[in-house]
Amino acid sequence: MKVLITAGGTSERIDQVRSITNHSTGRLGQAIAEAFLAHETVRIDYVTTRSAVKPTASEHLKIHLIESTQDLLTTLERLMQENTYDAIIHSMAVSDFTPAFSLSEQQFAERLNKEALTPGSLPSWFAETERTASKEAKISSDTDYLFLTLKKTPKIIRSLRQWQPNAVIVGFKLLVDVSKDHLLEVAKKSLITNQTDYILANDLTQVSETHHHGYLLSKNGEVIEADTKQEIAQCIVTAILE
Amino acid sequence: MKVLITAGGTSERIDQVRSITNHSTGRLGQAIAEAFLAHETVRIDYVTTRSAVKPTASEHLKIHLIESTQDLLTTLERLMQENTYDAIIHSMAVSDFTPAFSLSEQQFAERLNKEALTPGSLPSWFAETERTASKEAKISSDTDYLFLTLKKTPKIIRSLRQWQPNAVIVGFKLLVDVSKDHLLEVAKKSLITNQTDYILANDLTQVSETHHHGYLLSKNGEVIEADTKQEIAQCIVTAILE
Repeated sequence: MKVLITAGGTSERIDQVRSITNHSTGRLGQAIAEAFLAHETVRIDYVTTRSAVKPTASEHLKIHLIESTQDLLTTLERLMQENTYDAIIHSMAVSDFTPAFSLSEQQFAERLNKEALTPGSLPSWFAETERTASKEAKISSDTDYLFLTLKKTPKIIRSLRQWQPNAVIVGFKLLVDVSKDHLLEVAKKSLITNQTDYILANDLTQVSETHHHGYLLSKNGEVIEADTKQEIAQCIVTAILE
Repeated sequence: MKVLITAGGTSERIDQVRSITNHSTGRLGQAIAEAFLAHETVRIDYVTTRSAVKPTASEHLKIHLIESTQDLLTTLERLMQENTYDAIIHSMAVSDFTPAFSLSEQQFAERLNKEALTPGSLPSWFAETERTASKEAKISSDTDYLFLTLKKTPKIIRSLRQWQPNAVIVGFKLLVDVSKDHLLEVAKKSLITNQTDYILANDLTQVSETHHHGYLLSKNGEVIEADTKQEIAQCIVTAILE
């Protein structure tokens, strides 16, 4: 059985010394990999970041390191071409945005001088500024305000089903401080939109070092509840191996 | 002898799942601490981050964990009140900016509708938007462009001399891909402005896993060159202990 797991959080470079990072220790992915590796027949491709916690090394586990969302996309496209997976567990916290351009207060004022900014001109202003703004190796700190514009990254989870029509796919949805009903509703929508078989829904306020509350929703409408990373890992492995 | 070392890179939260992080492994601070600890009489307060590499534990080393620039400021103010240091080695990569507010494309357009943005109104527009923009626990990804405005953090290195008038202070200056002359010139200005005794000037293009090229400038105009983190650490320790 061939399994692909993504874990940890991507980082998007602002310049050569700064990045926007999605918090994720990688511990949930580690627990899932280790639960799979208890089964002799499983082989894992494990896509993660340099700083994430890693599963214990095993001849059945191959680690692939990435940094940004673009790296992740490139690596997954390659792996998906070379392999057919029985299951894909996409637990990585992927950046929704990546830096498009940054302007100091003075640079922003100079651009406003050339062309006024109105609600209608916003989209073309963004595109034009992205095309023409200078990219510095290290942004100067010589400004009181720094005006950083981010653009959307590609939604990788939407591509998984196209790449691997027959894999069992598990997506993840993390919200912050919402009701159970709202969490399950948003997770269910994500499951349908992204054509995954399962989705693990969790709320950051219910995640700590020792505790990790989550709901595993299946496309058939079943919901299983778990209270630790190990329990979540076990639920996912059981769902896939059965 | 009492020494304070800061090491690693600060992180500034954008929301509960994302931060802007300054890249720094903490390895240079680790090397400096370990070079100091070879001397029996040295006691170190070591201020760093959760993810940074740490020096080998020692009864002569006390670790203080921080995350943001504001945390660093609070921790240093406390340590400086409670202690008199013989030396301060401020190697931490401190964020120059911290998030002030973020707007989706739609939120930005709505604000432009109420008040046009002109070069002259920029400073008051930033201040007013910072005051009134909603703070979300997790920024929605439902926008093509996200408009993140950052504001300057306090320059901690400028406070060190006020806090500890008699300490030997070592600052750090990291630039990216500049000439040696430019690097030394910028470092010398920083040394004078911040009233430090030494400054370690380095260029990111000359830093790798095994190699770390740097210049230790003293306020008397001496320049010592080093090629590895261990050599840099040794130069700093020698300069302070002599």
